[in-house]
Amino acid sequence: MANSPSGDSVAGRLIRVLETFTAARMVQTAAEIGRRSGLPDSTAHRIVGDLVRAGLLERDQDRRIRIGMRLWELATRSSDALRLRQAALPSMERVQSRVREHTQLAVLEQDEALFLERLSGPESGSNVIRVAGRLPLHASSSGLVLLAFGSRELQERILAGPLVALSRETVTDAAALRRKLAEVRRLGHAVAPGYVEEVSTGVAVPVKDETGAVTAALSVVLRRHDLVEATLAELHAAAGEISHALGHRR
Amino acid sequence: MANSPSGDSVAGRLIRVLETFTAARMVQTAAEIGRRSGLPDSTAHRIVGDLVRAGLLERDQDRRIRIGMRLWELATRSSDALRLRQAALPSMERVQSRVREHTQLAVLEQDEALFLERLSGPESGSNVIRVAGRLPLHASSSGLVLLAFGSRELQERILAGPLVALSRETVTDAAALRRKLAEVRRLGHAVAPGYVEEVSTGVAVPVKDETGAVTAALSVVLRRHDLVEATLAELHAAAGEISHALGHRR
Repeated sequence: MANSPSGDSVAGRLIRVLETFTAARMVQTAAEIGRRSGLPDSTAHRIVGDLVRAGLLERDQDRRIRIGMRLWELATRSSDALRLRQAALPSMERVQSRVREHTQLAVLEQDEALFLERLSGPESGSNVIRVAGRLPLHASSSGLVLLAFGSRELQERILAGPLVALSRETVTDAAALRRKLAEVRRLGHAVAPGYVEEVSTGVAVPVKDETGAVTAALSVVLRRHDLVEATLAELHAAAGEISHALGHRR
Repeated sequence: MANSPSGDSVAGRLIRVLETFTAARMVQTAAEIGRRSGLPDSTAHRIVGDLVRAGLLERDQDRRIRIGMRLWELATRSSDALRLRQAALPSMERVQSRVREHTQLAVLEQDEALFLERLSGPESGSNVIRVAGRLPLHASSSGLVLLAFGSRELQERILAGPLVALSRETVTDAAALRRKLAEVRRLGHAVAPGYVEEVSTGVAVPVKDETGAVTAALSVVLRRHDLVEATLAELHAAAGEISHALGHRR
């Protein structure tokens, strides 16, 4: 792929176009894509036209643009996101049906927790997590698991900050976060009371792959003052099954 | 995006690279991608390198390439696939828990049925369907629903053939298929005994969007000689709920 005069690769420009689409902004005009991507208008129009002809974006009768089913299909059918999610789904369904609160699976992606799946019931409480959405590593139970069992380099990078507060309870002090990560490693799970929202407590456990490395975090969002023990037992049992399905033998 | 000397747009070449990844082939070398995409070796290597730097593909320690989490994230977070699937999931979970067989959601994509979701239990029977996989419209219960309620142009295009047989029971005669589609419209559901695999019977019902158009098919894969009535009742109730969640008011 040739570079543009700006030195931006075509893949880079493609990402800038795709990044303008979010969960809250599924449909845009070509002009909006151009403005939000920061690309010259003519460049944005050309890329959008090209992607529409290839079926990666779709244009409706009002000429508004959305992500194409073809792009979703190609990005999903052979992705690790689907493989992990399919391995986890039966166990996640059991956790959700027993605990009756939001049940999620997350992986480490670009120094954040990326959520691959979320199961919810009609009686589940408050939850900001979306499928294909993210949370900071230090500020969610899933992120704490991914960080505590991640590389030393990752930990030092995150500890160097900034440590943004999502709520009044988020740990934003590096020394306190370091102690929290040691606790997560010692206990084998993370409890994050009020870190994301003051009304809820996240609890998360590690999922391992065939090499024994932590490849994902399985979590539940409880009400803030719920007891965590029964949920942790469900999560540990489910994470053991998922790890086994991924080839982990201990 | 500039065109290459071959007249193939960059988006077109990108699709050719992405299409070499399948559910059965999640990991490839750059050389394999080049050979399977039909692109000149140097072009394939350049595109792969560009996509790896942008995070849309990932390269592991053995220099093998896979679809990147970042691509999955960008293709999913604002996609109609996720929106439809999230609207359908609670109802699909109830159908699966009651019928205890594979429960799927499919949409029309490029003249085929594209499956957005599949829920299965440990006791579910045989099933070839995968998430982000496809089946021909004439040869599956989901496809028959999407075809029967699709446009006249779509129907004539499919009826003009070829009508490939997936099993001995697949309807491959255009006149018989035309009668089958009329039956699906009259009954409001499709039953496809043995069409995909001789051991199973697919049953599917339409899901409508806010305009009243059929936007998806909800289906269950039963054992070949199971009775279909109770499953159809579950499917119709679930499809009504999903249509309502999508804004359909009748």
